[in-house]
Amino acid sequence: MDIRTNYNSNNYTIHVGHSIFETYINYYTSKYNDVFYLIDEYVFDLYKEMFLTFENVIKVPRGESFKDIYHVMDTIDFLLSNEIKRNSLIVVIGGGATGDAGAFLSSILLRGTDYIHVPTTLLSHDSSIGGKTAINRPLGKNLVGTFYRPKGVIYDLNFLETLSNEELLSGFGEVVKHAMLNNKNTVNHLIEVTKNKINLKELEPFIISGIKTKMYYVTVDETESNLRRSLNLGHTLGHALEYEYKLKHGHAIILGLLFTLFLSNKILDTQFDLNYYKKYFNTIGYNISYLYDLAEDNLINLMSVDKKNSVSNMINFVLLKDYGVPVFKGIEKIKLKKYLKEFQELI
Amino acid sequence: MDIRTNYNSNNYTIHVGHSIFETYINYYTSKYNDVFYLIDEYVFDLYKEMFLTFENVIKVPRGESFKDIYHVMDTIDFLLSNEIKRNSLIVVIGGGATGDAGAFLSSILLRGTDYIHVPTTLLSHDSSIGGKTAINRPLGKNLVGTFYRPKGVIYDLNFLETLSNEELLSGFGEVVKHAMLNNKNTVNHLIEVTKNKINLKELEPFIISGIKTKMYYVTVDETESNLRRSLNLGHTLGHALEYEYKLKHGHAIILGLLFTLFLSNKILDTQFDLNYYKKYFNTIGYNISYLYDLAEDNLINLMSVDKKNSVSNMINFVLLKDYGVPVFKGIEKIKLKKYLKEFQELI
Repeated sequence: MDIRTNYNSNNYTIHVGHSIFETYINYYTSKYNDVFYLIDEYVFDLYKEMFLTFENVIKVPRGESFKDIYHVMDTIDFLLSNEIKRNSLIVVIGGGATGDAGAFLSSILLRGTDYIHVPTTLLSHDSSIGGKTAINRPLGKNLVGTFYRPKGVIYDLNFLETLSNEELLSGFGEVVKHAMLNNKNTVNHLIEVTKNKINLKELEPFIISGIKTKMYYVTVDETESNLRRSLNLGHTLGHALEYEYKLKHGHAIILGLLFTLFLSNKILDTQFDLNYYKKYFNTIGYNISYLYDLAEDNLINLMSVDKKNSVSNMINFVLLKDYGVPVFKGIEKIKLKKYLKEFQELI
Repeated sequence: MDIRTNYNSNNYTIHVGHSIFETYINYYTSKYNDVFYLIDEYVFDLYKEMFLTFENVIKVPRGESFKDIYHVMDTIDFLLSNEIKRNSLIVVIGGGATGDAGAFLSSILLRGTDYIHVPTTLLSHDSSIGGKTAINRPLGKNLVGTFYRPKGVIYDLNFLETLSNEELLSGFGEVVKHAMLNNKNTVNHLIEVTKNKINLKELEPFIISGIKTKMYYVTVDETESNLRRSLNLGHTLGHALEYEYKLKHGHAIILGLLFTLFLSNKILDTQFDLNYYKKYFNTIGYNISYLYDLAEDNLINLMSVDKKNSVSNMINFVLLKDYGVPVFKGIEKIKLKKYLKEFQELI
């Protein structure tokens, strides 16, 4: 299935399906004189034989460790010494972190080189859409980056088959988020088909609908000045937890979503059933116990460097008035600390 | 005088004049809650009293030494620890190098923070227009960067009064280039008023007309896929000389322009009077002797990493069919070496 963006210009297509890698790699690379492949070293080892015919393969540090300026600069110098040109193509193959850093690299190399995404995880189908690029800094995740669109995204679902349950869980956080941003039916249906275990086959329709949900938000508001901030649902506390406790992204997002539901109940008077969600997340394999003893001050410091804040003593959250109805709310740090304590007692 | 860009959106104004700094700084900063000033340490020392009332002043390494990823990242971390937000304003005060690096920093911090340019040299009036940002890499100048427009440019000509003759010469290269891209009359007139010495007062109309020439090119072709490449006149060899012999930018450009005229005579059958230009440049203070013993292979290697190249064994030049008539020409490396040798003998 092909899903195409709907900007005024510079549109691109997201190709989703099984066994589509080869066809579309050939399609895109045939347009360029030079092609350079940045491949997550772990993915490279798993799929060596797929990459045998490629020239110019550069194995990059696995996952999050590539989202570091020094690794990015080393890779840039290596590409330059191999005479990469502004009209070359970079193919970024790997999970969400590889995509973030590879896209950032492409956006600053020679003031912008064309690139395509080949996401290989459940999470990366999400981060590869929308043109956000990023690396981390000591003060927090994704604090440095650009907006820079790929020329295309090849999402071959066969890659997902080698994912461990842990990795599936890591990506599943975004699937749950997209469902919550969609509507109540999607949420119920998703829980129904995953209530005992995440099954890849059953998940595919939700992946497709998640791509469409995300596409809607990033098209109407590419640079996140308004509606796109909705996609931050669960991420405000989530990113801080991820950083503080070195959690996988999706794990942290699930915990962040729980807190979001709690905050929505508190502030918007909603009636989300926290206990129900807690049990469900626990059953499919998430470790909720991180929430029992939070370092509130550290987390609040981490949240306060978040890009989405605009006033110093407030932290911006996305809450839910209902499924599919995100609401933006600034919360004072001092109140937030109180909420975090209350949340730990309740959960 | 105000000159405004003419893009479809995100336009900005270049304010040019004497004693305009304070007025326009107040105008821009009043729109933001938080303002951070990145000031070249040398400029800061010269104009301390002007900056007394500013909070959040960060002195950055002088000139080209700031165009380094490690300095940029240190500065980013410092800004983050001082709680800079995506809706803060960064004011970049300094010469062309400070502007390149400060704008690059702004473009990647929190995926893009607003900034304004306050150029303080003759050269920086040029680099502050057009939205190009850059830092250097070991393999060459400006190999990493972005396209990212400022919110405004405040070009207070009073800053130029403290420039040494050496610094004036460094900026004058771009003034000559803009004149050559304009027409024969501008060139003749420029040489007439500067034939013995560069006089700041006399230069002002050329600065204004240079801004307009540049504005024309960067508006019709922002990302340099076509016509904007004309602005690279003299820069192909110029950048390589600058890097190889650690020359000031404008000095290197003057030498690069001489080579451009030589190449145009060779390849396009023009009749530019090399000897006349050589004497003129010599008289006003440029050191031509660098051209007598060039390290051709090093220079060709440096030129081959230039962003404007698209094929491996060719190097792209901008030549002049006539004043105001730039022509793009790819030259094979092997031929280029021959031309470089011939040029040294002739000059």
